[in-house]
Amino acid sequence: MAYTAVELIEQKRDGGVLSREAIDWLISAYTAGNVADYQMAAMAMAIFFNGMSPEELAAWTKAMLHSGDVMDFSEIPARKVDKHSTGGVGDKISIPLAPLVAACDVAVPMMSGRGLGHTGGTLDKLESIPGFVTELNPERFTEILTEHGLVLAGQSESLAPADQKLYALRDVTGTVPSIPLIASSIMSKKLAEGLDGLLLDVKTGAGALMKEIDRSRDLARTMVGIGESHGVNTIAFITSMEQPLGNEVGNANEIRESIDVLRGEGPDDVTQLTMTFAEAMLILGGVDRGRERLRQAIESGAALDKFIDVTIAHGGDPKVIEDTSLLARSPHEAVIAAPHDGYVTRCDALTIGSATVRIGAGRADKDDVIDPGVGVSVLAKLGDRVSAGDPLARVRYADESRWAAQRGHLASAWEISEDPVPPLPLVVERIDATTF
Amino acid sequence: MAYTAVELIEQKRDGGVLSREAIDWLISAYTAGNVADYQMAAMAMAIFFNGMSPEELAAWTKAMLHSGDVMDFSEIPARKVDKHSTGGVGDKISIPLAPLVAACDVAVPMMSGRGLGHTGGTLDKLESIPGFVTELNPERFTEILTEHGLVLAGQSESLAPADQKLYALRDVTGTVPSIPLIASSIMSKKLAEGLDGLLLDVKTGAGALMKEIDRSRDLARTMVGIGESHGVNTIAFITSMEQPLGNEVGNANEIRESIDVLRGEGPDDVTQLTMTFAEAMLILGGVDRGRERLRQAIESGAALDKFIDVTIAHGGDPKVIEDTSLLARSPHEAVIAAPHDGYVTRCDALTIGSATVRIGAGRADKDDVIDPGVGVSVLAKLGDRVSAGDPLARVRYADESRWAAQRGHLASAWEISEDPVPPLPLVVERIDATTF
Repeated sequence: MAYTAVELIEQKRDGGVLSREAIDWLISAYTAGNVADYQMAAMAMAIFFNGMSPEELAAWTKAMLHSGDVMDFSEIPARKVDKHSTGGVGDKISIPLAPLVAACDVAVPMMSGRGLGHTGGTLDKLESIPGFVTELNPERFTEILTEHGLVLAGQSESLAPADQKLYALRDVTGTVPSIPLIASSIMSKKLAEGLDGLLLDVKTGAGALMKEIDRSRDLARTMVGIGESHGVNTIAFITSMEQPLGNEVGNANEIRESIDVLRGEGPDDVTQLTMTFAEAMLILGGVDRGRERLRQAIESGAALDKFIDVTIAHGGDPKVIEDTSLLARSPHEAVIAAPHDGYVTRCDALTIGSATVRIGAGRADKDDVIDPGVGVSVLAKLGDRVSAGDPLARVRYADESRWAAQRGHLASAWEISEDPVPPLPLVVERIDATTF
Repeated sequence: MAYTAVELIEQKRDGGVLSREAIDWLISAYTAGNVADYQMAAMAMAIFFNGMSPEELAAWTKAMLHSGDVMDFSEIPARKVDKHSTGGVGDKISIPLAPLVAACDVAVPMMSGRGLGHTGGTLDKLESIPGFVTELNPERFTEILTEHGLVLAGQSESLAPADQKLYALRDVTGTVPSIPLIASSIMSKKLAEGLDGLLLDVKTGAGALMKEIDRSRDLARTMVGIGESHGVNTIAFITSMEQPLGNEVGNANEIRESIDVLRGEGPDDVTQLTMTFAEAMLILGGVDRGRERLRQAIESGAALDKFIDVTIAHGGDPKVIEDTSLLARSPHEAVIAAPHDGYVTRCDALTIGSATVRIGAGRADKDDVIDPGVGVSVLAKLGDRVSAGDPLARVRYADESRWAAQRGHLASAWEISEDPVPPLPLVVERIDATTF
């Protein structure tokens, strides 16, 4: 069947539904360079306005997923379950979660990303462990997964190349916030990983990609629908991203807090989310009595051992895990103090995240080098009672001018009021195939 | 002021209004190649969906118009008035119209285009006069205009280069049928011609770019609004394009019919439209007693002489005007005959236009060579009574296989029914600054 890009753009623009054959043609011609970026940009904008039907979305995702390699771990007997988060500030959940689940006999072939915008990236965090290599070839990826039931790596370039090309294009054409495009982008990469189950954490609120609960729910349902239509059991949680998760923001800081969680000594919110997600991943992995197994894995030290073992497999230095004071820590320290007595009524994730990135924990330009020792310890969170002069945050930094430029911005993240606000629920909603 | 393409695309995508400064930046960065085609494609699609306010549209048109040269004919004392048609089948009106108006002391610096899709182009038609050169440098353009009060040339590449770039992009990105983009494209080119007045012919119906009267009216009003906001008096006519104009379709055929009009011997519809438009152009040119002057110009032969003079100035052979039987005529003739008795209730411009183009009168590919002698003489039009076997059309062609491939398609343009349908009004509406 012969198509032209223009006729398909026109069809979508005018509210039509693209056939599976047309979508297959479009994605494969785009990957091959026979459909131009300017045509795909127009198509993406038409999709922004007119959306996609569930059938179109399933076909679109499948075409992107089959634009490159599809991994096959069928020789590994354990069920394979991964987790994806739409990204938040202080969101280090993947790091304690993956070894905890793997310690309970569910294999976790985790593929993560780098920091983006105001959020950190799992790969950047892991690389604050000296020697930890996240770029693996497929053979080494499979080896580590086979031996440890766990691997923590970057996305292979051979997976879903159509998505990688379209993702970069969307970023420069104002076509990022389209639910079908976001959902198919995430799911095409995840479905290429050869999974049995997938856990999705869809963040909602001021610090999230999706600010409104309705859109977060729409995205979560859309992704669960795609997963199920591809035969991968998928559970999504909608979780709050108003304030940072836990107390630590910054790469080494978040590794430290992750290890605390694996020792059973993490802050409540990170621990709660890790356990909730881990339990869901055990369900997806077919493991019974999940809560109990998870508690045992932490109490026995099996989860921490799993993290140490996989760190060694990735070339990382396990000493920093055993003694987290060896992790990078920038030379200078400063404190943000409460201006007056009261309750914390705002502790804005977006502001804290973007300030931390700009102080040196992230990249403003693609080629910037991350300083793993830069970090913000959040000492006062929503609902906390503080007195004037109490520390709201402790900041570690290396570059005086960067810190000076962000100090006021960072301080503006907090609001201290006379009356407390009711605490936000951490887990807003759970969505799976039975929910809708 | 510093902008980025992405923020402006997002603003338009989300229903915002772009400032004049932002539009100036965007158009000039696009012309310079600093905004990529894929960004402009996304912007064009966002404009397709969200439109433009009158202020945005005025700024957008002005920015495109000032992206290149703006002509200045202020040394020519006569008022300068041009005409633009959105394109139809058999639409040769410009050819008799321009010399007729010029013969009545209004200067006509006419810039025309080539055939596009199923419609012919004024330049292609003029080039069926042996030797007639339509590509002129600015000096020669001004010389001919100064000497004859008339010039019939192609669009200079130095006029509105932003539009030329965007026009080509829209063609391959499904962003053609956007009223603000169509209106600003047409008007930016016309306003760069340094006119005092502009006559617009907006075609409506099955054979037109705009099929529905509401959209035709919207386009006409939008363009009149742009013209007036730039200080150029503008009159638009909405005219019917259900069936071809006149009896001749094809390049030499249309020159022949145009000369008939200049001799006062043209078919009613072409003559009526030419006179209506000419009268409006004389009003725009500040000439009184227009109808009478026009009648005199035809009766005295002054209009025909003007066409002969300007043909010589363009290097064309005037003998073919004095004796139109010398114009190209393809060697073979065929007839489409009425299958049964009845009234013509359909004589479809789109079908007749596309068949004529494919028989050899136009280009399927950019590099195709036009055969000026290919043409269709339409012998039965809407409302005509025909008997079985009567000729509906006489076709001149050179290539047997092309004709064989189009014969059935061409014949399908006519429908013969027992009951006549009421005739369509030729001029549907007249719109000027006082109308809305």
